[in-house]
Amino acid sequence: MSKTRWSGRSPWQNRSVTYNFSSGPATLPDAVIAAIRNDLPSWRGTGQPLMTLSHRGADFIELMAVVKAKLRQALAIPDSHDILILQGGGMGQFAAVPLNLTHPGDKVSFLLTGNWGVQAAKEAGNYQLCVDRPADQQSGNYTTLPPLENLAIDPASAYLHYVPNETIQGVEFSTPPVTVVPLVADASSQILSRPMDVGAHGVIFAGTQKNLGVAGAVVVIIDRALLGRARLETPSILDYTKMSQADSLLNTPTTFAVYVLDLMLDWVARLGGVEAMAVESRAKADLVYAAIDASDFYRNPVEQSARSTKNIPFTMADPSLDRQFLAEAEAAGLMFLEGHRSVGGMRASLYNAMPQVGVVTLVDFIKDFERRNG
Amino acid sequence: MSKTRWSGRSPWQNRSVTYNFSSGPATLPDAVIAAIRNDLPSWRGTGQPLMTLSHRGADFIELMAVVKAKLRQALAIPDSHDILILQGGGMGQFAAVPLNLTHPGDKVSFLLTGNWGVQAAKEAGNYQLCVDRPADQQSGNYTTLPPLENLAIDPASAYLHYVPNETIQGVEFSTPPVTVVPLVADASSQILSRPMDVGAHGVIFAGTQKNLGVAGAVVVIIDRALLGRARLETPSILDYTKMSQADSLLNTPTTFAVYVLDLMLDWVARLGGVEAMAVESRAKADLVYAAIDASDFYRNPVEQSARSTKNIPFTMADPSLDRQFLAEAEAAGLMFLEGHRSVGGMRASLYNAMPQVGVVTLVDFIKDFERRNG
Repeated sequence: MSKTRWSGRSPWQNRSVTYNFSSGPATLPDAVIAAIRNDLPSWRGTGQPLMTLSHRGADFIELMAVVKAKLRQALAIPDSHDILILQGGGMGQFAAVPLNLTHPGDKVSFLLTGNWGVQAAKEAGNYQLCVDRPADQQSGNYTTLPPLENLAIDPASAYLHYVPNETIQGVEFSTPPVTVVPLVADASSQILSRPMDVGAHGVIFAGTQKNLGVAGAVVVIIDRALLGRARLETPSILDYTKMSQADSLLNTPTTFAVYVLDLMLDWVARLGGVEAMAVESRAKADLVYAAIDASDFYRNPVEQSARSTKNIPFTMADPSLDRQFLAEAEAAGLMFLEGHRSVGGMRASLYNAMPQVGVVTLVDFIKDFERRNG
Repeated sequence: MSKTRWSGRSPWQNRSVTYNFSSGPATLPDAVIAAIRNDLPSWRGTGQPLMTLSHRGADFIELMAVVKAKLRQALAIPDSHDILILQGGGMGQFAAVPLNLTHPGDKVSFLLTGNWGVQAAKEAGNYQLCVDRPADQQSGNYTTLPPLENLAIDPASAYLHYVPNETIQGVEFSTPPVTVVPLVADASSQILSRPMDVGAHGVIFAGTQKNLGVAGAVVVIIDRALLGRARLETPSILDYTKMSQADSLLNTPTTFAVYVLDLMLDWVARLGGVEAMAVESRAKADLVYAAIDASDFYRNPVEQSARSTKNIPFTMADPSLDRQFLAEAEAAGLMFLEGHRSVGGMRASLYNAMPQVGVVTLVDFIKDFERRNG
């Protein structure tokens, strides 16, 4: 209905099938897209789309409770932990965690295994904290993981922050680090893609725009023992205690993102839950790594045991071919393969919703491009 | 696709036509809902829904720029002012405004004409500020407005905060208060419903879930002269300066809400812009006020000149009939007429997207209910 002339600069326009390798917002399952479409203009016989219903009405309040119950089941979240659904994404949590869990002068600890951990540590530094870095993999250009045990973590630290999967560098922890202090996980790109020991964590947060649906909400799973500590100057929208007391309805949530999260949880459950997702995830990633490792034309720099099953960055021996690779990939309907601007090269993100056929199409393209340019 | 059995407790379920008087999230124009549906599963020939496209891709970056340009045109925003599209709703801005515009120890001033001003003043009180209240209409139960000139505002105040339209009490300013200090407007329920003197304001913020589309984004219009002052401990997602420098793309925005905002701006422009919306708005409100004022059965307590054209609270002489009124209204497809829990009674919200036929249906119901129960 827009009258604006669109520039149409995307070479993939007007293709019938495209595969979307974006790191987030990311691809959705066809079944979820169909359900969204099917629920318009009337959601469950209300005569209204979900997105126009009041968040104070019985229907949305029930939906919120249902979504939390499904999350609890899908991730085996113990009763000791509360589930919040907030706004502001992972970056909002970079501020929320220190504001909710520390007092000025406290020490906090960060495992730095990539870009997002670095950014979170930087933001924590704005809150009058002593920011300790018991591991920083920068010297290895973030291609390795630190050991998970016997880390030099001050037991007086308010928390240990780590990033189970670094989206930009493509490094992933298989198990959480071992520590006596509350463990904080930025799980945006890992959640719901494999089983997770929720009880081992003080806080897990995850934006919804990767494995949980669309952008606009952030799931926070928090040990109830950590509630009640927010600083006075914590913005209410980031205050875990206030939000817990209000069942995440202190203000208007992104109702559409909550609704799509519900659809995603159903979809994952139907396919066998996080265990099935982990198998799928491994299989899809193996296809891409095999293609990259089979040639000297491509390269993934990450240490074998640290390689992510969700985000696979790769470069070419001749980086001057990058532009051509990306342009031809786009023309072939393979979208958003450009690496993050901080590392360059290419990156394929393979979240739950990326179908095997998309990965196979990518692998075929990777091999074909080498044949033609190698 | 959900396997959950829905309780179906909403009596309006399975009606073919419903009218949604929710105060937000609020009703959308049929044409916008149709456009959203039509853009699934492929937005503008990309083969992907808008909501799965990367916010770093050329398409979304262009959409963001287009939306800002349309906002600038629709609201006649001068070049002196920047436009940000953030997350966290109006409540996020209750913290963002003091964090961005003040230092500890500063004085800030609030005109209190209803619930949202009171809440914003309370939140500002968490930031080591002297919170002055040059007008507080609580004594009149928030049914009146203060004079707009000669207010006792300390010229040393960092800003004067007011709420052009109070959603819960239903009081609305026709013109902004006159002051020499930067003027901050919480315009969530008024924006785009009438012309506004943007240049007279330092900051205008508005959640998107009323007149601008769906929940999940908040538009902030800010005098560029006020940038560069954020406190160190401002969460990045609420930092006007960082967000301005990043064109609101410091983190992943609620891309779906930005997309629906684009559709809403087109729809309003097609109907004649804010001037036409103001005429429509007045006409719709007059229909409801006339029905209420014509009888002693119903009552709106707000002083004539302060009455809102967007939110009309009303009570019945016999409040024991409230439940029956709401139940029968719902059965007749008139949704979300319950007053805010803090004031009780009923409330009809008539934003831009509420069609005249919805208002007429409501007025007929109001009259009929009186006939049967008066």
